[in-house]
Amino acid sequence: MKPGERRSDGLPDRRVLDLAAGLGELGCRALLVVAQSASDPDLAAFLAAPAHLGPALLIAPREGPPRLAYLNPMEREEAAATGLPLITPEELEVLRAAREAPEPVAYLAWVMARALAAGGVAPGRVALAGLAPAGEIQCACAALARQGWEWVAGNELVRLVRKRKTAPELAAIRQAAAATVDVMRALAAQLAAAAARVAPPAIQTETGGELWLDGRPLTVGRLRAEAGRLLAEHGVEQPHGNIVAPGGEGGVPHSAGSDGRPLRAGEPLIVDLFPRGAWRERPLVFADCTRTLCAGEPPPAVARAHAAVLRALAAARALAVPGARGWDLQEAVCLAFEEAGYATPLRQPGTTTGYVHNLGHGIGYELHELPIFRKVAGAEGVLAEGDVFTLEPGLYDPAAGYGVRLEDLCYLGPDGLEVLTPLPYDLDPRRWMLDPRS
Amino acid sequence: MKPGERRSDGLPDRRVLDLAAGLGELGCRALLVVAQSASDPDLAAFLAAPAHLGPALLIAPREGPPRLAYLNPMEREEAAATGLPLITPEELEVLRAAREAPEPVAYLAWVMARALAAGGVAPGRVALAGLAPAGEIQCACAALARQGWEWVAGNELVRLVRKRKTAPELAAIRQAAAATVDVMRALAAQLAAAAARVAPPAIQTETGGELWLDGRPLTVGRLRAEAGRLLAEHGVEQPHGNIVAPGGEGGVPHSAGSDGRPLRAGEPLIVDLFPRGAWRERPLVFADCTRTLCAGEPPPAVARAHAAVLRALAAARALAVPGARGWDLQEAVCLAFEEAGYATPLRQPGTTTGYVHNLGHGIGYELHELPIFRKVAGAEGVLAEGDVFTLEPGLYDPAAGYGVRLEDLCYLGPDGLEVLTPLPYDLDPRRWMLDPRS
Repeated sequence: MKPGERRSDGLPDRRVLDLAAGLGELGCRALLVVAQSASDPDLAAFLAAPAHLGPALLIAPREGPPRLAYLNPMEREEAAATGLPLITPEELEVLRAAREAPEPVAYLAWVMARALAAGGVAPGRVALAGLAPAGEIQCACAALARQGWEWVAGNELVRLVRKRKTAPELAAIRQAAAATVDVMRALAAQLAAAAARVAPPAIQTETGGELWLDGRPLTVGRLRAEAGRLLAEHGVEQPHGNIVAPGGEGGVPHSAGSDGRPLRAGEPLIVDLFPRGAWRERPLVFADCTRTLCAGEPPPAVARAHAAVLRALAAARALAVPGARGWDLQEAVCLAFEEAGYATPLRQPGTTTGYVHNLGHGIGYELHELPIFRKVAGAEGVLAEGDVFTLEPGLYDPAAGYGVRLEDLCYLGPDGLEVLTPLPYDLDPRRWMLDPRS
Repeated sequence: MKPGERRSDGLPDRRVLDLAAGLGELGCRALLVVAQSASDPDLAAFLAAPAHLGPALLIAPREGPPRLAYLNPMEREEAAATGLPLITPEELEVLRAAREAPEPVAYLAWVMARALAAGGVAPGRVALAGLAPAGEIQCACAALARQGWEWVAGNELVRLVRKRKTAPELAAIRQAAAATVDVMRALAAQLAAAAARVAPPAIQTETGGELWLDGRPLTVGRLRAEAGRLLAEHGVEQPHGNIVAPGGEGGVPHSAGSDGRPLRAGEPLIVDLFPRGAWRERPLVFADCTRTLCAGEPPPAVARAHAAVLRALAAARALAVPGARGWDLQEAVCLAFEEAGYATPLRQPGTTTGYVHNLGHGIGYELHELPIFRKVAGAEGVLAEGDVFTLEPGLYDPAAGYGVRLEDLCYLGPDGLEVLTPLPYDLDPRRWMLDPRS
């Protein structure tokens, strides 16, 4: 296959070429992905569409196309639909393995060795990726090392190779993002309606009147359930849940929020949705978006933090160009927050108030993948064309009872940065209703 | 802690005791679970409820309670909610690791070594479990081996330990099963309604009139979407999708079915639902249930296969007692099918017609776990009180255009076998409507 040539099997050309180059740098003759299912990100990245497959292996020699080895004869139709050249359970002799090497470690070593041989890879230095049972892969590799195999960590290589999204992946991320945007608007509308329905004497924004909707209190759990129901209607699901975190709960960025907690007027609420596509014909990729909403008058500290976060997000977007390091953006945001009087990890590592986390993360088959925004030397920390990532500055003060985070999902395309989650940023959900797209 | 004593932290006593016994047999001083999130089955099995945690480790010394090491300071509230004694990111020195050992392999080796030390485990023989990046865990373990650590595959031990379900796990499986039952009834009702609406001249069951509902053709994709919507309403989701496979597509057991395919009268349809709970306060466990439905008159071969499968299921249920081997049940079902004239893997290994798969599988945090129904020597193949598993005999003939599978989710309790998916078995969905529970 010549570079740039379109493969007849519909595989993403460039990804295979990037992989070959990476294997060359590692001095490896092949990549072996050991996957528990076809939804393993390191395997899914080489499939045209999701497949209903159990344990499977990808064998990608440095020269030549990758091949898919599947273990269950019943999965032949699903395996064929991937478009990859196949290594069958019969070639792997899985029935003989089940008799002669039934122990998990011995069975795994058997299929790894046979899959590599069937893929034309002779014993030598091989990069290993995929998500596997830790103890079993460790012991199987140790056993195979005695037969001349040498193992190199290949997970980071595959992460780098799948950092740049393919056209079908980008289209699927757009679809998941569009669902997220629709649902976020619907949740804001509910909060706006609830804010309007607080009975006049109860609008005591300083003391925090409880929000009611349709004659019942609006709780964290109720809004969370509504998010789940609406996302499912849009064809996405939430394998990692979501965050609906009011007041002090939102002050700890990864707190998911307590379902029984009532929502109150004048209290900020972090809504962070990170669903994954559940469709049959498209890559199963994530979207991710956060807004902070406050029904009623926000406390001054919250309004001030919100304004600072919004400025930081705009600054980060402006700096997000191909070749920029994620760390450059992180540092710029830290400096801006410090100037505004907030603590940041730049000068106070481990701080739990102020700006307490990194600016964002790549996204795709995994919710958190490359690029990263930490201080690293390699390409994993450099923004490049084709990347999809979040930008999500935030300010937190759990003791003062607030967290504010605004998160956009961004695509760095040929025409610059595109925000895939176009939504209002206003704290007050009633202002969202003025947005022409609502 | 004395055996049988109730732990103050609410941990499943027996599971911790079983683990300690298993570690003794392996000659290991501890179990180390390396998990990418708190939903890793090997970690989830030791938590009282699901937690919103990223990468984490469980350190379970042979003596003493297991401890949870988490890596992200922002997750302190979620980690605390697990009820496990914690090892904090500060104790692991993750900030120093990010500076001094930023490469994935070095970072992983750093946190593994520090977590073990903080858990009171000195270098020596340790069982390793969890699902980890294959290349990175392999290389991290190899590096740690040079510091005196010896690694034993611990995944199978943890699978054995979590084979017997805890009370909260069983309750959650019941809830997922109840959702599955409700949705299966709703899908049968739609098929029954569609069957009633085929215009009289179109009821040509031999040639297969297309089923219509609400003025539109009823396709595989439409029924699948309906299943997804209804399951989401019941608080469960489908991380592995589902199977809606008509005619010849149902003849290959793991084929998921083609969305564009119209459903036809007189053609059998396999509906296999295997959702997982998506609730916040209960274990995230799977249910699994299959019915084969045929709107209109089934072809004689399908009716005959259905009767044989129903007899096989009853026979398997009768044999499912504590101490029975899964293989005994599988063999009995094979013999029954052979007597009825169908091929089975007993005498024709690798057959793709007749009875082509194993009888069932354990279920819990994973869709497929222990017990297994293959010919194995150990406890992994023996039914015991507390197990939850499927029984799912089937007969398949893709060339003849059919597959028939009936799958029940079963709990082997103190009072014997309980079917958690009580549903009619009739091929004709119109007959389901006669069931008093419909």
